[in-house]
Formats: sequence, C-alpha cells, structure tokens
Amino acid sequence: MVTMRDVADRAGVSIATVSFLLNDTKPVTAATRARVEQAMAELGYRRNAVARALASRRTHIIAMAYPALEHRFGMSTAEFFTSAAEAARKEAYHLVLWPVGNDGVELRELLGQGLVDGVVLMEVQLDDPRVDVLRETGTPFALIGRTTELEGLSHVDIDFDTTVRDAVGHLYDLGHRELVLVSGDLADPRFHAYGPWVRTEDAYRRIAAEYGLPIVVMPCSDTTQAGQEAADRLIQEHPKTTAILVLNEYAALGVISGLTRLGRDVPGELSVLPLLMVPETAALSNPELTIMRTPGPELGQLGTDALIRQLEGADPLPPQLVPAKLYPGATVAAPRAPRSKGGGGRRGERKARS
Amino acid sequence: MVTMRDVADRAGVSIATVSFLLNDTKPVTAATRARVEQAMAELGYRRNAVARALASRRTHIIAMAYPALEHRFGMSTAEFFTSAAEAARKEAYHLVLWPVGNDGVELRELLGQGLVDGVVLMEVQLDDPRVDVLRETGTPFALIGRTTELEGLSHVDIDFDTTVRDAVGHLYDLGHRELVLVSGDLADPRFHAYGPWVRTEDAYRRIAAEYGLPIVVMPCSDTTQAGQEAADRLIQEHPKTTAILVLNEYAALGVISGLTRLGRDVPGELSVLPLLMVPETAALSNPELTIMRTPGPELGQLGTDALIRQLEGADPLPPQLVPAKLYPGATVAAPRAPRSKGGGGRRGERKARS
Repeated sequence: MVTMRDVADRAGVSIATVSFLLNDTKPVTAATRARVEQAMAELGYRRNAVARALASRRTHIIAMAYPALEHRFGMSTAEFFTSAAEAARKEAYHLVLWPVGNDGVELRELLGQGLVDGVVLMEVQLDDPRVDVLRETGTPFALIGRTTELEGLSHVDIDFDTTVRDAVGHLYDLGHRELVLVSGDLADPRFHAYGPWVRTEDAYRRIAAEYGLPIVVMPCSDTTQAGQEAADRLIQEHPKTTAILVLNEYAALGVISGLTRLGRDVPGELSVLPLLMVPETAALSNPELTIMRTPGPELGQLGTDALIRQLEGADPLPPQLVPAKLYPGATVAAPRAPRSKGGGGRRGERKARS
Repeated sequence: MVTMRDVADRAGVSIATVSFLLNDTKPVTAATRARVEQAMAELGYRRNAVARALASRRTHIIAMAYPALEHRFGMSTAEFFTSAAEAARKEAYHLVLWPVGNDGVELRELLGQGLVDGVVLMEVQLDDPRVDVLRETGTPFALIGRTTELEGLSHVDIDFDTTVRDAVGHLYDLGHRELVLVSGDLADPRFHAYGPWVRTEDAYRRIAAEYGLPIVVMPCSDTTQAGQEAADRLIQEHPKTTAILVLNEYAALGVISGLTRLGRDVPGELSVLPLLMVPETAALSNPELTIMRTPGPELGQLGTDALIRQLEGADPLPPQLVPAKLYPGATVAAPRAPRSKGGGGRRGERKARS
C-alpha cells in the first residue's frame, strides 16, 4: 500500500507538507500542491490519509451496504433495515444505509474515509466483489446472505431449503400435484449470481423431484407487471396448474392481480403462495395472500449482532439460517379437483384454507 | 460551546491529556480518566473533538435524514431516496441514509462525528427540532418539506394546494358533489405536526369550501387495515358519498380493498383517488388506482441539488413546490347518479374514466 511517506519522497517534500495539503490544515503553494498531486497520481495513492489517521478511533457507526439503485428497495428490505437499525441502537451503535453498487467500487470509496467501524452486507452475490473490498481494507463485516466460499465469514441467511420444503409440503398435503414456481429472472445480469434466487430455484427443483412432482419453473422479473404477464402465460401454457409458488414479492402481487383480472377464483381454482414476503405486502392483495413470511426482523438483528460482536471482541455468533414460516392468508386451499388420487385424498380438508 | 481547554482546566490536566483520552492515542491512568470524564459530564462537553478537527475537511458525502423507525419506509420514500442517491452520484457525491429520530438527538450525535458535508432532511415537521440541530452545528442542509418558519432555509416540497385543487377539480368536473377526504391521523403524536398531513387537510377544507362542497374529513392511520376500517365507516356514516380522496398510500390500498370486499363497484358506485401515491403501488390494486402521482423523483433530485449547490458555493436553488399530477388508472369515473343537478350535468362524460 502506498504511504504518505512514499508520496512525500516522490514529490521531494516533507511528510508534514503532504499532510497539510491532504488535511487542508496549512496553506501550501500552488507549485508544491501540483508536485504532490502528481506524485499521488503516479503512485496511485488514495486520499485516505485521514482514514488511516482515523483508523484507531471507533465511531460506533456501522453501515448496511444495500445496492438500492440496482435492487428494488421494497417492504422486505425496509424490514431488514429497520430491524438492523433497532438492533444497533440497542447496543449504542448507529446504523446508516449506504446505497452503494454491487461491484464494490463505491463501497471502497466510502470505506477509504474511515467513517464506520464495520459493514453489514445485504443482497449478497455468490461471488461478491464487495467481500474482497472489505477484506482488503481490513473492515470488520457480516453477511446477511451467503457467498459460495464462506470459510471464515460471519454470516446469517434465509434457510431456503427449509422454506421451500415447508411450502411444497404444505401444498402437497392439501392435495396439490401440479405446481409451478414463478422464480426470479436469472438471465437478468444484475441477478444471475444473486444468492436468494439461485438457492430457491435449486431447492425447488430438488424438492419437487423428491415429491415426484412435474418441475415447472417460470422466470419472472420482480415487478407487478411481470407477475401479471406470468399469470397470463401460466394459464395458457400450464392450464392444469393448481398451485403457484412465487419467489418475489412484487411479482407475487402481479400474479394474484393478474389471476383475478382473468376471472380466476383464488384459491378455488388456483392457490397462490409467495415464498418470501412480509405480512404488510400480503395485506395489499385482495384476497389477502397466504405467505411464507420473510424472516427480515430476525435476520436484520442477527446480522447486526454478528458484526457488533466482532467489534466488541465478543464470542462470534455462529452462522445462522432462518426459514420463512407459513403465515396464514386466504390464497391457499385444497385443489377443487385433485389431479392425483394417490396420497392427495384428504378430502375432509378440501375447504381448509391456510 | 464548551472547549477541550475548559475540560482540561476543570480536570486540572493538560489539553494534551484530554486529547490523548478522547482520541485514544496514549494511555491515561484510570484516575485521570475519571477526573476528565467527570469534568466533561459537569460541563456538558460533547465528545466532538475529532469532529472539530475534521470540520475543515470535505468528505463529499451527504446524508438523507429519514426517521425510518417512526415513519414507514414505503414505496414513495424509496423513490425519494433513490432519486436523491442518483442525483448525488451525478455530482460525484455519495448519499447515505441516516435513520435518525425526529427529535434531533441521534442526528446531533452523528453530526458530531464530522462524517458528512451536509444533510437533506425528510419528513419535515412544522416546528422541527432537527433544523435547530443543523443550525447549531453549522451543518449545510436542505429540506424536502417545509417548517412553518422558512426564512433563509433551502427547501423544496410538494405543492399540496395545487395537488388538492387539481384532484377536487377533476372529480367536480366529472359531476361529483359528495366527497370525503380520508386524511392522516393528526391525533397520532408522531404526526400531529407532520407537514404533508397538516397542509393537505388544510388545503382540502379550504378548496372544498370554495367549491361549495360539504366538508367531510375522516382521520385514518396509514395502514391497509385502517383504510379498510375507514371504508366500512364511510359506507355507514356517509352513504351518499360518490368519491373518496385518500391522503396516504397504504390507507388508500385499504380503502379500495375494503370497498371491493363490501361488494361496492369501483368506480361505478364510488370513485377513489389517492392524493400521494406512486404508480407501482397503484398497480397493486384491483382495479388499478387512478392517482395523484407523488413527485418523488423530482423532489429527491431537487432537494439534493439544493444542498450540493450550497456545498459548491453555487447560486442557491430557489425554493420549489412541485404538485402531484393526475396519473390515469381505473378507479375514477363520473358518478352513476349525480347528486346535484346544478353544474354537474356533463352527462356526456359519464363514462369517462381517468
């Protein structure tokens, strides 16, 4: 790493002069300024003198890094954020939100200023350049999410396997045999390595196969409109479907409004079960959605606690996976006419809604 | 303002010792520490030595202060935030989000660390303690919103008067004479001085009176459930109503789902027009809501630009008010049977939807 001394040597000035210039604490002549700035440019010196001077001080501020300009900041995100902010407050830390991109460039710029004691990383990619930035800069951090390589990384995440298994099992027990997963759109370059989408789709394919179910997965962007279009397509291409699992929250709202606009009776003709949603969003739908409830409050707190334990030198929080749990609504019921006679015949439960 | 020298004098130690202790740069005996800390407590000295040392440096970071633990972080908020972050990025600034409370206490703590060049204030109250904190600390700032006393304050805001006037005018022109405003709940202590609610309700009372309309205002919290309850109450208490204006976004979704659950035809029997909503939220409803579209993208950018101009010493941005504009949907139409014979007789437009 290039130091202030390197810059001073190259420019032929004292370290103090470099410091005066960087910190604007004493006037420096234009000629000297030019020389120092040239030396900095040639050496690739980053203007982080202040950061290093500050490195020993604790700010008691932690940042949540969330790519708000690439990923939608929806109601689930808000839950992670506010629960993390509350958890930080309880431990006498401030949590702030950094809407920095997923490529790590802006994250590196902000870290260079020495503003925070550590970072909670959201929307983790399987191979995440931000993790490299955090390691290189020696910043303490915790993941809400998982990279592929997890060794030594403090992390908490949704338990996608259990979530999908519980959702499929619930529908299967009600008698459903023709399921469709409306998944994320992994062809979208912003999301091709986005952990939650990859892991959910993998889990679904595996678990549906275990249940002996036909595997139908429809990619879908996370917008209401894309969800409505998926509903259209689904009705045309997979008319025997009796239950739909939807990965994303806005897509799910689109699927349900699309189905009702098409005159389909939910849950009479089709059950709809979002895999990751918050009750507030579920209540926006008519009928109110039955959901797998995103464990945002738990994970926002656990991720923040994991980081603060590092900062305080406490015993590390072991990695934790928390499943989404079934949360009752009015869009899941037994199929009107079960497709399979074997195993699905709990007809006494036909009217049961969850 | 209490200085480090004051603390040193009171504790009977050198300024250097106070500095060592505050910056953790040299060990200090427990006895000395206790003496200095007592002096700081007695004098009300805030641990902002570092902040003052940093005061001269520019970070090129600005903060948006949003009370995320008190006010819901909904889809409109996300629009303000992301457009502000984009505007900052264009000017080579980073925008970060500070979820600090409305009382200014946490804001003061964060400002004391000298982390940002300035602050954009959201969710402004008519008499806002955060403005005092920003002034006292000499922090450049801009408001997205308005206090009652605005002299010398850089601000942009929604033009509530024009928004309400356009909304009422539109409904009036379609033939509506029995309107209800489902407003915010100003009895809620978190919101009693919240500018948008106070200004919208004031504007509505004034403008409805100008139009000679009966003035019915129903307070309502901003939740889907409260909106549904308001719909119930409205049908019972004001059965002649033909059009409903709704101030808040979640309440509006509740009103529309409440009405359809009650079997009311929207817009056949009742028109519904939210006053501040984003199209993404409007699309969640079935039928899709006709709305006055919150100018979040414009105001997020203008508020950020107003601050950055101050920081850059450019000509100040004059205060700007931007109205919400009518955005078409499927929940506003002419009333089925106009209540008033006089003036509302544009019957040729009865089928027109907006």
